[in-house]
Amino acid sequence: MIGSTRPSSKPFTLDGQCIGRIPPYVLQQLHHHKNVFQLEMDDSENITRITLHDRLKSFDERTKAVDEVMKDWRDNHVFPVLEGWRNEMYKVSQTYISGPLFNMERSATSLLGIRQYGIHVNGFYIDCKNDDVLMWVGKRSKTKATFPGKLDNLAAGGISVGYNIADTLIKECAEEASLPEELARRAISTGALTYCYEDERGYFPETQFVYDLELPPDFTPVNSDGEVEEFYLMKLEEVVQRISDDEFKPNSALSVIDFLIRRGYLKPDDQNYLHILSVLHRDLD
Amino acid sequence: MIGSTRPSSKPFTLDGQCIGRIPPYVLQQLHHHKNVFQLEMDDSENITRITLHDRLKSFDERTKAVDEVMKDWRDNHVFPVLEGWRNEMYKVSQTYISGPLFNMERSATSLLGIRQYGIHVNGFYIDCKNDDVLMWVGKRSKTKATFPGKLDNLAAGGISVGYNIADTLIKECAEEASLPEELARRAISTGALTYCYEDERGYFPETQFVYDLELPPDFTPVNSDGEVEEFYLMKLEEVVQRISDDEFKPNSALSVIDFLIRRGYLKPDDQNYLHILSVLHRDLD
Repeated sequence: MIGSTRPSSKPFTLDGQCIGRIPPYVLQQLHHHKNVFQLEMDDSENITRITLHDRLKSFDERTKAVDEVMKDWRDNHVFPVLEGWRNEMYKVSQTYISGPLFNMERSATSLLGIRQYGIHVNGFYIDCKNDDVLMWVGKRSKTKATFPGKLDNLAAGGISVGYNIADTLIKECAEEASLPEELARRAISTGALTYCYEDERGYFPETQFVYDLELPPDFTPVNSDGEVEEFYLMKLEEVVQRISDDEFKPNSALSVIDFLIRRGYLKPDDQNYLHILSVLHRDLD
Repeated sequence: MIGSTRPSSKPFTLDGQCIGRIPPYVLQQLHHHKNVFQLEMDDSENITRITLHDRLKSFDERTKAVDEVMKDWRDNHVFPVLEGWRNEMYKVSQTYISGPLFNMERSATSLLGIRQYGIHVNGFYIDCKNDDVLMWVGKRSKTKATFPGKLDNLAAGGISVGYNIADTLIKECAEEASLPEELARRAISTGALTYCYEDERGYFPETQFVYDLELPPDFTPVNSDGEVEEFYLMKLEEVVQRISDDEFKPNSALSVIDFLIRRGYLKPDDQNYLHILSVLHRDLD
């Protein structure tokens, strides 16, 4: 990463498992919250890792203690990212199928570099007359907190507390594109993309489970939660052009690129082919 | 890697680019060939990296000098892997599309940890009556030097000097399964797998370009070069079982697993799903 703060970040561990990575500007603030965040040092007093304080043993104790720190930072306007406080709890765990270690406010996860898991659905339609594949592309509402007006998948969303992958797929397909459950269940899982990006809000390690959904000719997606302004049916050539022109939400572009690779629209002769594939499957560490 | 010698291996570079990784037991032998392999040391006389000697500037000089070392090792039975000398030159380059730096005997590449590029073709047939996908699986000849009797893809092979990816696909499909060029060209590229394995022969960093090829109902692959004993049309449940039972050539199992993931036969609910995906996309360094 160019200009990355990763070299000066530190691992965030709990019960001996690495669950995140903390950027240097957050590390500075942790010194004021040593009753919650325990800073482990080497002999030269360099921080080696951060963990939650030993006294915080249960799920509820950890959730409450972390929440208090995040609310303190929010109320004192310490980090701009917390101005977008969502009142939405996110399950922190070692992997997406392991038990929860604690819950925390979703908008604060990037401050601790907690991995987010989500689903992305590539919706498409095969025009048999011309043997052409067309992709359904949504335009995000101008009022969305993140990436307003950018192009997006048919449906996508994070896996929230109490939902599994299939639940999330059905929920997002209903909310974002008015897909009946029966139709959403036809989506085929095609793999997962793992990557990490960084911006002024912190670290975003993400894993997205990618689905392909072929929609019937008589179905047109319609948004039902106000988060999508409009849907377009685009030729793949146009999709590629819009990605090049930076019109897509960045992580949604990744699942579209994955679709294009898996279906042979992007070919190994392309000079950047292996580089693109490595970006789609790059872990935090 | 369990029992890996990687921590004591050293990078092999040329013209400032890393092109391989040399295992410790090969490093020991290089001291006898300092006119070809230049060992760069730090202040404490630890080897930091290996490169070809400065006097070797051209493609031809490098090819000839490396070949002399490999033949010396072969003739003196220094490394068992060279008993399988193939008389087949392999192009060493930074990436599969960059210009060749030198050529070397294919069976010796694992001693320098040179990346191999190849193609693997998942051949399948859709039984419309039962809406069932069946996979064409070959059984390797008992006389093959590597992995005799193991199960394999419809066709697979390394990219040799003078061949590009499409050439290799067509050549291997013809040799291994008697596919006419017109049929082989219908194969769709679906991505690339990048991984490294190690055994007593050295390091095998590999990148395989994966293709899916749907065969028509009236076509049965027949081997034409003596390398495949028989072809089977297998249900995917059986393919999964045979992989679990270790009946597949290991790297061919990877492209089959990739097929199973991309088509939703292996699902994200599987506990090892993300681990398997990371194994399919793990670089040398």
